[in-house]
Amino acid sequence: MTPHAEPDPQAGAAVKAADRAHVFHSWSAQGLIDPLAVAGAEGSYFWDYEGNRYLDFTSGLVYTNIGYQHPRVVEAIQEQAGRLTTFAPAFALDVRSEAARLIAERTPGDLDKIFFTNGGAEAVENAVRMARLHTGRAKVLSAYRSYHGATSTAINLTGDPRRWASDTASAGVVHFWAPFPYRSPFYSSTEAEECARALRHLEDTIAYEGPATVAAIVLETIPGTAGIMTPPPGYLAGVREICDRHGIVLVLDEVMAGFGRTGRWFAAEHYGVVPDLLTFAKGVNSGYVPLGGVAISAEIAATFDKRPYPGGLTYSGHPLACAAAVATIRVMEDEKVVEHAAHIGETVLGPGLRALAERHPSVGEVRGLGAFWALDLVRDRETREPLVPYNASGDAAAPMAAFGAACKRNGLWPFINMNRTHAVPACNITEAEAKEGLAALDAALTVADQHTV
Amino acid sequence: MTPHAEPDPQAGAAVKAADRAHVFHSWSAQGLIDPLAVAGAEGSYFWDYEGNRYLDFTSGLVYTNIGYQHPRVVEAIQEQAGRLTTFAPAFALDVRSEAARLIAERTPGDLDKIFFTNGGAEAVENAVRMARLHTGRAKVLSAYRSYHGATSTAINLTGDPRRWASDTASAGVVHFWAPFPYRSPFYSSTEAEECARALRHLEDTIAYEGPATVAAIVLETIPGTAGIMTPPPGYLAGVREICDRHGIVLVLDEVMAGFGRTGRWFAAEHYGVVPDLLTFAKGVNSGYVPLGGVAISAEIAATFDKRPYPGGLTYSGHPLACAAAVATIRVMEDEKVVEHAAHIGETVLGPGLRALAERHPSVGEVRGLGAFWALDLVRDRETREPLVPYNASGDAAAPMAAFGAACKRNGLWPFINMNRTHAVPACNITEAEAKEGLAALDAALTVADQHTV
Ligand SMILES: Cc1ncc(COP(=O)(O)O)c(C=O)c1O
Ligand SMILES: Cc1ncc(COP(=O)(O)O)c(C=O)c1O
Repeated sequence: MTPHAEPDPQAGAAVKAADRAHVFHSWSAQGLIDPLAVAGAEGSYFWDYEGNRYLDFTSGLVYTNIGYQHPRVVEAIQEQAGRLTTFAPAFALDVRSEAARLIAERTPGDLDKIFFTNGGAEAVENAVRMARLHTGRAKVLSAYRSYHGATSTAINLTGDPRRWASDTASAGVVHFWAPFPYRSPFYSSTEAEECARALRHLEDTIAYEGPATVAAIVLETIPGTAGIMTPPPGYLAGVREICDRHGIVLVLDEVMAGFGRTGRWFAAEHYGVVPDLLTFAKGVNSGYVPLGGVAISAEIAATFDKRPYPGGLTYSGHPLACAAAVATIRVMEDEKVVEHAAHIGETVLGPGLRALAERHPSVGEVRGLGAFWALDLVRDRETREPLVPYNASGDAAAPMAAFGAACKRNGLWPFINMNRTHAVPACNITEAEAKEGLAALDAALTVADQHTV
Repeated sequence: MTPHAEPDPQAGAAVKAADRAHVFHSWSAQGLIDPLAVAGAEGSYFWDYEGNRYLDFTSGLVYTNIGYQHPRVVEAIQEQAGRLTTFAPAFALDVRSEAARLIAERTPGDLDKIFFTNGGAEAVENAVRMARLHTGRAKVLSAYRSYHGATSTAINLTGDPRRWASDTASAGVVHFWAPFPYRSPFYSSTEAEECARALRHLEDTIAYEGPATVAAIVLETIPGTAGIMTPPPGYLAGVREICDRHGIVLVLDEVMAGFGRTGRWFAAEHYGVVPDLLTFAKGVNSGYVPLGGVAISAEIAATFDKRPYPGGLTYSGHPLACAAAVATIRVMEDEKVVEHAAHIGETVLGPGLRALAERHPSVGEVRGLGAFWALDLVRDRETREPLVPYNASGDAAAPMAAFGAACKRNGLWPFINMNRTHAVPACNITEAEAKEGLAALDAALTVADQHTV
């Protein structure tokens, strides 16, 4: 069990007041939020100043793959801080080289050169720049039901409502529909049919856009925030084949799915597909220090062998972030965190969530693998009508808010997006913790059930 | 004097080999670079594995304002790492609130809400998003001779050749000419004339673009990488007045100029101007942990009081980065680093560089203040022809390369951009170190002199 500090509501009130005075929060109406003041965190838990402890089924924003405050990674950060906390990108540094090597050894195929960024959005920005310059083409295809970050190109690639306010409609992005058997855009009735129709749709879209105008297809290997839709067998191999046929760069965005989340180092391994560019962040060092990047194929790297790569950022390959990555990857190896994520998914989370689905009419579908699961909540199992409408807020979203509040009362901090809750705990969550989380979900789902027809 | 490690060329060779195998470097042709392997750094110096020590006149990429490895900031990072190294942005945290408060107390005027990012480009991206949503307008004006970062909107705003490869020409950006007395775009012969003509040019550009189509003007308060052109008295006040008259948001980019670099907390203070949005990064925590952000006026913050702000990033307000900012700001206060930067500029760097200009015909102009200086090198003082042509590379850039090599031989690591060298050391550089740097420049300038007419 995790220690939590003595309650100190006064300190918590002061932290919250200071936050409200000066911190501008992302994705929020500043006057309508009431951020919880957090006092500490360890492993799979965090706690507030009131004496409440929560089992974190969100891993932050799905990034603390090794949980909070892993002592070996904390120590590595402290050690590197004492040695050389920062240095500019143009130089060779032991820890930068070592992080690149450890990542390159784990990325699939010949993705052996690593361009470091601070986070996921910058990784996607640079992958798109590389693809455009490599092909000399402008357009980029991405999927509805996706999230790729919030800088200009990344948000334009994104296929969820967060794009709308920043959509310039001139970013050279074309959205297509990826497979989603449970809510098929293609009226298919089997996974195989969904796969075939989704590939046909993509092929047709490219034909009408003009294959020679398309630089890249950017896809989350398994879409994360949009709903953890594991692609049907054969889909990604089919996309790879389409890309090869048309000279299009395949970018797999593994910012969320990478580094153990799915029970493999990278989700692409499940599908036997090697992209040309792979974006990562989050799990690479569990977000202990901001870090992201792009793993680059030999062919694309060669494009920039004699010709300068025209992109960069002040903190590319930041030593403190790289030290955290080196330590995190070593911890994941030594403690078999990737294998554990696969195992907990197969033996506890998967079966446990499917058992909840049997008991709770509000659960329409359970999807996922490893430590990466979604419950698609519905008003009606027959029609699959979502528990709340797409992009609902306020009263229309009340059933999900009630479900979320029930989770918190039961000591579980839930990930909620539209009509879904995701079970995305630390990849090294123990069996007992996972079961504790399932029990809290079980209780909270009775609240969701009340909103079914 | 700073310690440097025992030479260990073998270790250096291994670091370099690992770098070449796996690290993809920014702004570079990967096959043509030969990155120096760096073994350590302290204060104003760093050293390699061969026994060479360099006085860093670049502050990394102009960001280590308190020098390398300041013990108090290192300790604060180590302490925060042990307490809570990471936590998601939606929560209130003591160190996040404290960093926001300390920054807000130093930013000018009512810029009291802080949106945190990982670096400068993301800060600029978010400032532009805020301005567009606040005004409901699309276009953004920025200056030629500027650098704003390398994500999509930031690089489109940039006015240097690094933009070209990524320029979508559809980002809603319009470039105008900012004042530059030494190389006047307006054929002016005095600073006052340059100011008046630059304002007239901006006013005319806005009139022809349509004032009601312009969301924001984005300007570096003092353009950094582009040449440290301190604006003539009255220019920024004039821009502020134009913005007010047309309901245009004024964004001052202080990613490089902020946090002490110019001898004030923010460069805007020199000109008595308060922008609506101010972007920062680099000096906020000397880059010890990646951090940037936007300081937001009360009026713009109010736009997002009931309406959600549609932007964010996983590591917004990262606790480790915020802890480094808190410690850095306290160090800068306690050690009077800002005052020191002003003093060293007035008493050592300014007079010293002007003395070099008198001795060396290759120095066309000395510009700057604080720890923020440029030498504009010329072939011919009369015509002001630059020592190397705009955006030269290879043989055409050889005179600058020869100058740079001479600096390094003399133990100085120089900042070089086109025909300029910038003297941008740590803001707490000692008088003796500054003089050491001036002596090395003196020797190296004799090499540049050989390329004058
Ligand atoms: C798949 C994916 N790509 C990109 C991003 C953007 O990453 P960041 O928030 O670090 O910019 C995210 C963030 O959630 C993501 O899930
Ligand atoms: C004025 C200015 N703005 C923005 C940036 C971009 O910052 P970053 O490299 O952290 O993205 C820089 C970087 O040098 C800069 O000097």
